[in-house]
Amino acid sequence: MSHTLGDIAKTIGAELEGDPGCEIKGVGTLEHAQPGEISFLSNRRYAPFLKTTRAAAVILKQEDRALCPVARLVHENPYLGYARTARLLYPGSEISPGIHPLAVIDPSAVIHPSAHVGPHVSIGGNTRIAERAYVGSGCVIGPQVEIGADTRLTANVVVCAGVKIGARGLFHPGVVIGADGFGIANEEGRWLKIPQIGSVAIGDDVEIGANTTIDRGAIENTVIEDGVKIDNLVQVGHNVHIGAHTAIAGCVAIAGSVRIGKRCMIGGASGISGHLEIADDVVLMGMTGVPNSIKEPGVYASAIPAMDVGSWRKNAVSFKQLYAMNVRLRKIENK
Amino acid sequence: MSHTLGDIAKTIGAELEGDPGCEIKGVGTLEHAQPGEISFLSNRRYAPFLKTTRAAAVILKQEDRALCPVARLVHENPYLGYARTARLLYPGSEISPGIHPLAVIDPSAVIHPSAHVGPHVSIGGNTRIAERAYVGSGCVIGPQVEIGADTRLTANVVVCAGVKIGARGLFHPGVVIGADGFGIANEEGRWLKIPQIGSVAIGDDVEIGANTTIDRGAIENTVIEDGVKIDNLVQVGHNVHIGAHTAIAGCVAIAGSVRIGKRCMIGGASGISGHLEIADDVVLMGMTGVPNSIKEPGVYASAIPAMDVGSWRKNAVSFKQLYAMNVRLRKIENK
Amino acid sequence: MSHTLGDIAKTIGAELEGDPGCEIKGVGTLEHAQPGEISFLSNRRYAPFLKTTRAAAVILKQEDRALCPVARLVHENPYLGYARTARLLYPGSEISPGIHPLAVIDPSAVIHPSAHVGPHVSIGGNTRIAERAYVGSGCVIGPQVEIGADTRLTANVVVCAGVKIGARGLFHPGVVIGADGFGIANEEGRWLKIPQIGSVAIGDDVEIGANTTIDRGAIENTVIEDGVKIDNLVQVGHNVHIGAHTAIAGCVAIAGSVRIGKRCMIGGASGISGHLEIADDVVLMGMTGVPNSIKEPGVYASAIPAMDVGSWRKNAVSFKQLYAMNVRLRKIENK
Repeated sequence: MSHTLGDIAKTIGAELEGDPGCEIKGVGTLEHAQPGEISFLSNRRYAPFLKTTRAAAVILKQEDRALCPVARLVHENPYLGYARTARLLYPGSEISPGIHPLAVIDPSAVIHPSAHVGPHVSIGGNTRIAERAYVGSGCVIGPQVEIGADTRLTANVVVCAGVKIGARGLFHPGVVIGADGFGIANEEGRWLKIPQIGSVAIGDDVEIGANTTIDRGAIENTVIEDGVKIDNLVQVGHNVHIGAHTAIAGCVAIAGSVRIGKRCMIGGASGISGHLEIADDVVLMGMTGVPNSIKEPGVYASAIPAMDVGSWRKNAVSFKQLYAMNVRLRKIENK
Repeated sequence: MSHTLGDIAKTIGAELEGDPGCEIKGVGTLEHAQPGEISFLSNRRYAPFLKTTRAAAVILKQEDRALCPVARLVHENPYLGYARTARLLYPGSEISPGIHPLAVIDPSAVIHPSAHVGPHVSIGGNTRIAERAYVGSGCVIGPQVEIGADTRLTANVVVCAGVKIGARGLFHPGVVIGADGFGIANEEGRWLKIPQIGSVAIGDDVEIGANTTIDRGAIENTVIEDGVKIDNLVQVGHNVHIGAHTAIAGCVAIAGSVRIGKRCMIGGASGISGHLEIADDVVLMGMTGVPNSIKEPGVYASAIPAMDVGSWRKNAVSFKQLYAMNVRLRKIENK
Repeated sequence: MSHTLGDIAKTIGAELEGDPGCEIKGVGTLEHAQPGEISFLSNRRYAPFLKTTRAAAVILKQEDRALCPVARLVHENPYLGYARTARLLYPGSEISPGIHPLAVIDPSAVIHPSAHVGPHVSIGGNTRIAERAYVGSGCVIGPQVEIGADTRLTANVVVCAGVKIGARGLFHPGVVIGADGFGIANEEGRWLKIPQIGSVAIGDDVEIGANTTIDRGAIENTVIEDGVKIDNLVQVGHNVHIGAHTAIAGCVAIAGSVRIGKRCMIGGASGISGHLEIADDVVLMGMTGVPNSIKEPGVYASAIPAMDVGSWRKNAVSFKQLYAMNVRLRKIENK
């Protein structure tokens, strides 16, 4: 879907320096954009490509204007400007309504006629699929589930009994929502499984990455509020509560009953211990371990950065003496 | 399924202080239980809710009796008491025997007539599915597999050739059992794949969480003993041996040929290097790295806890000088 | 498929000390090999089993000959020798060509007559499946995909629109290739999804482990070069570029736009931050955190090894004072 530069500038709220009638057919990186494509400069790492770009136009900040040899769309947040542009040029495909003859649907399920149900799908009793929802090939939807309007389950997604999902959600392949939480009690050295009778409640505009798992609650629900975005291979334990507009990068492990605030950003491969709280507006860098509640907004970290293996071996051994070193140091200071 | 308080007290082995005829219809948290529901107090974090709970009865310890305004079931391990209660009140649904017409089953496979095989399932040659086993929608079972009595593969579970699974197992959606181990040999800078000719042997009463993967052995089998409980998104490498009644939380990475003892508890997001042994009764806290064998039972840890990013930056830089600091400290001490 | 020792020695390039006519039917470990099986000694941990092995022959190094009571195949790299032997004895099964009647295939897709398409598969428009490729039960292949000759998608693999996969690939169950990258822009506290219009290009001879996810590019492609081997539950973010013959162990998290060189070895559960470069021939030990580019080949690490929880508590607390300790130490030195 092509648009003129003038259209784009207006839609994204940028000041245009260039021909408003110029036709834009797609987006490209500064390095590889072709004529007719629009690009952007947000991460300064890529500034060197500006000079030689073949893009038809570039979305950039006021201060980078002078460096740009082609048409400019000046925007205070070029990444956001790019996001809006890409959404304009690539609006996504319409879904084709209807139920594939190889889908197996319980007679008591209610599928809106505008929804799409692909082949090899199963849908359980009393489940409701709302208007324009998309249930792709191989998805397994349990009984008593609700899938909101315009929500898409791409392929091989599993949604277990009783889960409620809001509108405009996007669930990538292999996602599992509502499997049993890890609830076991020790009985003389053996584990007794505890029935997981809660479910999962997911708000509107939630995106869940491929192969991520969100467990059902032990008694009450696991809750994912509106606008939460979760990347791939994330584990969300039972009874976790994730506040609205929080974003969680890949491979994060969140233990049971954690309460994460609104607008947090959780870096990849972080781990959060059970039964604790993280305030609103907390940012965790990648690979951060969180063994205690975080009560103040701010940026937190704990990862040790990579070093050559020789140094690492010495330093890692010294770590085991760290407290002792502290004591020794105090002893010297006290003299 | 409702039960009287008297029944429940007897079943879970608690001393009842209250009306034994009181009818209990379900469980609830202290905070949100409704009349007719039973609750419990195990984690002291939730003690403040005791005073105002609307639960019909609470399972708790001797020392918490005085705080409880409603009927009491006194138990020395309230969490275990709760587990038994929940199992009584929520016994799980019966499976419906039969093979769905959209399942594709090799003629040489033997499916017990009391077993359930859902739609979109494939089952390979000479595979045996025992009595009352459940193979849910989208599962793919290879040839020469054995699935024990009462074992449930919920949905989209993949079990590869030759895997043996015991009785009363529970395998959550997306689990993959018996994919090839990561066996490669370097040949002049290229990787040569090594056929993985072992398989996986899983005992009775094993539960495996969503999207967890357990690789087949290189030569001999990967072995999961009876009563092992594994959470979501755990990787179990080839030829790992996990002792009976060990519990493993989410996102743990276990490299090949590791031998883990009985009754261990492995905290979430821990990592265990290849070819080492972990004794019986070892507990790893979350995010622990294990590069060497652990020969003594006990509790182990290694994670650095989150701190504000400013402190972290300074401390992480100093970590690279830790051994040097130790040397400098010794130098001063020697003076 | 049985072979004589003479055949094996010739194929793997080993010097044989023993009867070249001896028939070998399979492989076994030193500890458990049966008569008629061949074994190997590579990891010295297993040397004690050499003396009592019942194997018909052992592949080993020159220096271990004297310890071996049975026929010997002397090889400078016994593990590679074993790999070649196992490939000879276990060549893998032929695929059976044809399309299962329960596969759903877009009429514009082109499936080579020698390819296998299993039950419960979906294949999108204009997708091409080359000769002898295998698409196992439950796989979902989007439109405009290319699957190269002899590539195998075992079961429940999802390959999204436009992905190109080379020849002789092996994709284990639950793999997801080409789901959307985690591209979101913040707009006044809410996340705006950025269309992910790139795709994924995968070379020849690539193996991808169970439930691993490889995201499609934001604008250009995510690229996996020839001969790359990736283990289970690995996350590869959008626009990552992985150089030829790099091997990545399980549970690694690779953020977006990372460029990894050729012949690297990435240890399990490592994490690599976004937009950075890792040189050719870099080795990361397990659980290494990489927040900055690594420009020199070599071995790198950062994990803290497990210690008993008492020591850990003290040392972890002292870590928060590490920079301060460094300052205090300097102060003393300056006196």
